[in-house]
Amino acid sequence: MEMDQLVALCKRRGFLYQSSEIYGGLNGFWDYGPMGIELKRNIREAWWRDMVQGHNELSVPAGAVSPYEMVGIDTTIILHPQVWKCSGHYDLFHDMMQTCRQCKRLFRADHVGEMLKESAWAKALAEATGGDVSTPNSEGLLKWAKSKGKKLAPGLALVRAPEVTLASLAKHLEQASTSGLSFKGLLQHLATEQPAETGLQTPCPECGGDLTEPREFNLMFETHYGAVRDESNKAFLRPETAQGIFINFKNVVDSTRVRVPFGIAQMGKSFRNEITPRNFTFRSREFEQMEIEFFCHPSTSARWYRYWRDRRYRWYVELGLAGDRLRLREHEQEELSHYSCGTADIEYAFPFLPPGEFGELEGIAHRGDFDLRSHMEGKLVRKGDELVVESDEEGKPRYRGSGKDLSYFDDLAKERYIPHVIEPSAGADRATLAFLCEAYREDAAPDENGAMKPRTYLKFHPRLAPIKAAVFPLVRKDGMPEVAQEIYTELKRHFNVMYDEKSAVGRRYRRQDEVGTPYCVTVDSQTLVDGTVTFRDRDSLKQWRVRREDCLKELFGLIVGGAAPC
Amino acid sequence: MEMDQLVALCKRRGFLYQSSEIYGGLNGFWDYGPMGIELKRNIREAWWRDMVQGHNELSVPAGAVSPYEMVGIDTTIILHPQVWKCSGHYDLFHDMMQTCRQCKRLFRADHVGEMLKESAWAKALAEATGGDVSTPNSEGLLKWAKSKGKKLAPGLALVRAPEVTLASLAKHLEQASTSGLSFKGLLQHLATEQPAETGLQTPCPECGGDLTEPREFNLMFETHYGAVRDESNKAFLRPETAQGIFINFKNVVDSTRVRVPFGIAQMGKSFRNEITPRNFTFRSREFEQMEIEFFCHPSTSARWYRYWRDRRYRWYVELGLAGDRLRLREHEQEELSHYSCGTADIEYAFPFLPPGEFGELEGIAHRGDFDLRSHMEGKLVRKGDELVVESDEEGKPRYRGSGKDLSYFDDLAKERYIPHVIEPSAGADRATLAFLCEAYREDAAPDENGAMKPRTYLKFHPRLAPIKAAVFPLVRKDGMPEVAQEIYTELKRHFNVMYDEKSAVGRRYRRQDEVGTPYCVTVDSQTLVDGTVTFRDRDSLKQWRVRREDCLKELFGLIVGGAAPC
Repeated sequence: MEMDQLVALCKRRGFLYQSSEIYGGLNGFWDYGPMGIELKRNIREAWWRDMVQGHNELSVPAGAVSPYEMVGIDTTIILHPQVWKCSGHYDLFHDMMQTCRQCKRLFRADHVGEMLKESAWAKALAEATGGDVSTPNSEGLLKWAKSKGKKLAPGLALVRAPEVTLASLAKHLEQASTSGLSFKGLLQHLATEQPAETGLQTPCPECGGDLTEPREFNLMFETHYGAVRDESNKAFLRPETAQGIFINFKNVVDSTRVRVPFGIAQMGKSFRNEITPRNFTFRSREFEQMEIEFFCHPSTSARWYRYWRDRRYRWYVELGLAGDRLRLREHEQEELSHYSCGTADIEYAFPFLPPGEFGELEGIAHRGDFDLRSHMEGKLVRKGDELVVESDEEGKPRYRGSGKDLSYFDDLAKERYIPHVIEPSAGADRATLAFLCEAYREDAAPDENGAMKPRTYLKFHPRLAPIKAAVFPLVRKDGMPEVAQEIYTELKRHFNVMYDEKSAVGRRYRRQDEVGTPYCVTVDSQTLVDGTVTFRDRDSLKQWRVRREDCLKELFGLIVGGAAPC
Repeated sequence: MEMDQLVALCKRRGFLYQSSEIYGGLNGFWDYGPMGIELKRNIREAWWRDMVQGHNELSVPAGAVSPYEMVGIDTTIILHPQVWKCSGHYDLFHDMMQTCRQCKRLFRADHVGEMLKESAWAKALAEATGGDVSTPNSEGLLKWAKSKGKKLAPGLALVRAPEVTLASLAKHLEQASTSGLSFKGLLQHLATEQPAETGLQTPCPECGGDLTEPREFNLMFETHYGAVRDESNKAFLRPETAQGIFINFKNVVDSTRVRVPFGIAQMGKSFRNEITPRNFTFRSREFEQMEIEFFCHPSTSARWYRYWRDRRYRWYVELGLAGDRLRLREHEQEELSHYSCGTADIEYAFPFLPPGEFGELEGIAHRGDFDLRSHMEGKLVRKGDELVVESDEEGKPRYRGSGKDLSYFDDLAKERYIPHVIEPSAGADRATLAFLCEAYREDAAPDENGAMKPRTYLKFHPRLAPIKAAVFPLVRKDGMPEVAQEIYTELKRHFNVMYDEKSAVGRRYRRQDEVGTPYCVTVDSQTLVDGTVTFRDRDSLKQWRVRREDCLKELFGLIVGGAAPC
């Protein structure tokens, strides 16, 4: 599959639109249309039902250490700023970036060198100098600055102020005891009007303008609550839902009767100000997470880690991500965070990635007691084999924790301890995108005249399909619409179904195939004779007849995978 | 009911916690605990099912003009900034505020005068001057400044720099041709070190510090996307979900087969930087909306407005908000926005409001073609009887619209027009709070020994109750737990049910009553004899026996209000 085809289908059939499209769009933000929201809702609901609401705390699921409880929570997107200081996001959640003072573009500092080599204006300049950079020809550079340079590198000092810049360069070459300049050195000189005043500048790979010094760029979106826009009222949009769970650990223990081991689950929006959002919805600035923090006794945490890793992998398989595009990858020792004693990624070979590369769908991490301790004691750092509270210059805690006791007392074992945490952290948008990619199929199928024609369909698991069934009258006469509408109305009470009577039935089938509707129900002339209707399967194209009054039961069997309750 | 009791119950039983509580809390932000999230989910799901997914577009609901379609959407919280300029939120969504330069507190400008009269330090000062403000006694003021003033009004210029301030005051009194000062004038002078330099200052009612000039305080949370934190990358957290729908009107029409009249529904978080968040979750800074934008032909829009107004009112009644605490209030002509030809509020008499006062749950507004036209043409203002694009000084549009054609072409009627919009806009948190307030009941009920004891219960509609049923073994022996666990496991596949075997059964009933579980199922000694179990109703306390194998069917009948499907 070409990614373009999927993107086009998503737009055409109302799965995904670029956010604020009528105003030119907003990079890294995506809206879910009528089909998209039903698909995403089904994924979210499947997760909530399979992980939380439908979990039976009396049984021991395969691979689990013991029975366990699960509860949900829903915390705010804006949290107290201290949360991010203690969690480490305030100090550590950043990339080193340089900004162009002319065109305002942003670059990851470690990419600038490589990008300058590939830069269009730098290549053109190298051509113009004929490769002689050690003793550059002033006249040639001046000519270039006033012609090609103007278009290619409007931000370059050489182009903005050629005389001053060239005079500075000449002065440098006079004084230089060395034999001349490297190409990199030349570029820096041409990016600098007055080196004596500003020091040598690094040019922007795009426009040639002067870049700022590398500085930390925190990926959290900043805002202010209350009226005063100063440091004391600064807040952040959460970059993950997890912290809202940790800071409520004690509230949940105190207000429910859960006992360790138990998990707290949360679904909700998170925000990361990605420098380079890309790959459709894969790397978005606003996205939705489905996270579990599972609290357990330190002595069993390694086994619980393996349980959750395998359980979560199986969840994707059960919903249709199978085969060699899905994999479970255990992190190497050196990849692990300083507090983790085990992390695995569930990854999918998205079609926009180079062959053999995988993108993360979900991470399952053994986080030890890092998070609860951070929120008790303050921001932790590793010191030898231990995690200790980071100190400032005066030896005081760099960021104070809440000071609240977040340990757990097991009243049966008479033991107090800080639980260990296993964190299965999934992205709802990435899951949606993976299910879309996996579902996308092309084949040839007979049209209404029996001729083989190309067909596009989305092979969604019935639980995930936005529409579970479509009901058609074969033609708009002989009472067929009335019968079809009755069946539709009956099914609609239980499932998201669609009624369609427009255009040839073959086209209607294809329309449903394209949005992944697993079953179509057609009322035809035989219905009027023997009271049966045609069921048609999206994937196999198989058709079979069902008694009109059994349609609901049939659909329950097909969708829910068994008879309806009772 | 006292509001305190409900708030305490919500905390104790895991409905609601203050956000970031372990760090001292964050004013205006609330988290939903394990019970709260299930309650809120049920409200959201009821809305989605009743308005969107379960809507049958082939029928004409009572009061509707015609059949109509409904689809969902899910748009981002951060939108293109131009959206808010055209919608009017950028210019108009604000209060006039003054900030204290000393203590940084914020005041609504129209409240300052009244607050100064009530201010502790101003009252103390009035006492100190003995009421003689026209010829104030310098020595008395100096003494006050160095004693009481220091504690009560640390920000007051008189306190911070008494000599300079009193010298300025003396100079003014010398020069003044009038007979002296008013009390307000005195306060202003005492808040001003050097009137010649700064002009007279208005003092802060809290600390006496100098207030800034009144300035517009926009209620939208600001942030920046991308790397540059300047005007061009400024963005806002949406203050309503509605605009995400309007700007996708064309996308939805183009990518689905909906025809006007149809509605687009969205649920999601919105943010308003309220100056004074209060009344539990009622006025929060982060909250969740459930909004519909219903697009119809202008000629039928008044009738559609009445349909939605009544339909939405009925929805609350159907889910249990009835009686005289709920009302539908049609806005008076003068209350209407400049573009609306009809608005009604659904209001609830929350217990934290003074008797006779109501708080808004949902607004239903006839918005004409205001929104779609704003996003086509630019920000609109009223000019005479018309809405026209607002101009800047040069006569150009103040804020340009998208320039995209957002009209609708009816291919059957061969008519092109801009649809009118009816907007039912509900708050999910307010609905949750109203259902909680309405459900809260106290009565007396017999305990396990037959003695009448006070009881608190939440009388939720079964659709909304977080837990639909609890299953108990009467005692933890004679095989009762095993039977109860089997029943629990069967029910759990279809409903959120709970199993509890701890403590006396009477206490277990009460525990369920307090979180609003409508039914309890108890396995007792008679179960072992005749295979029946006890069903118990939360509200009437009535008990009846049901055959063990009929439990699921019984519960379906009670919760869904009829037999299970098939």
